[in-house]
Amino acid sequence: MEHKDKLAAVDRYVAAFAAQDLQIIRELYAEDATVEDPVGTDPHHGLDAICAFYEGAMGAGAKLALTGTPRCAGNAVAFPFQVRLPNMHMDVIDVFEFDDAGKVKSMKAYWGPENMVQS
Amino acid sequence: MEHKDKLAAVDRYVAAFAAQDLQIIRELYAEDATVEDPVGTDPHHGLDAICAFYEGAMGAGAKLALTGTPRCAGNAVAFPFQVRLPNMHMDVIDVFEFDDAGKVKSMKAYWGPENMVQS
Repeated sequence: MEHKDKLAAVDRYVAAFAAQDLQIIRELYAEDATVEDPVGTDPHHGLDAICAFYEGAMGAGAKLALTGTPRCAGNAVAFPFQVRLPNMHMDVIDVFEFDDAGKVKSMKAYWGPENMVQS
Repeated sequence: MEHKDKLAAVDRYVAAFAAQDLQIIRELYAEDATVEDPVGTDPHHGLDAICAFYEGAMGAGAKLALTGTPRCAGNAVAFPFQVRLPNMHMDVIDVFEFDDAGKVKSMKAYWGPENMVQS
């Protein structure tokens, strides 16, 4: 998988939140993907569970803004961003791992209480 | 492991490069740790191989500067930084995973050619 395709996946992910468009999420992830958000909690497994998770996040009005350049390496991309909600923002790093078909097979989100700021 | 201890490990890591002090690296990592830098390449395995790897990076004059807040989650911390060399800099995200003794058991570094800038 070429780096430009991984970078495009990150852009689509940000766009999905901007448009509150779950269809983009559904196209981004593999059928049997896992989403661990934050790392250390039980992963969401499979497209339906993943879409339900994102529906909640989007319903709360979350928007994403990249805060640095995505870093592509191997079958993965790691990217730093801010989640912006009406009354707070939070610094997060997500890591996507891709399968051979170019779908995200694993997402891990790194964030903790220290990364939240009331606004 | 408490978040403050993970944040301290990140600070020590940056300090190790500032002081070119391999002893800090040796104390940070577990005996059987792995370092995959960048992700997708063969990992360095074990303290001796890891120290040899860092000796090379430090010998080239690399210094690290955090470019955002470290993100603690589960047994891990992910942090965005810039590697600064005399004639270039590079944006990187590292992920440390810790063992029960508080040592880094796995480091993965995410960066690619797009993240390098000549200066």
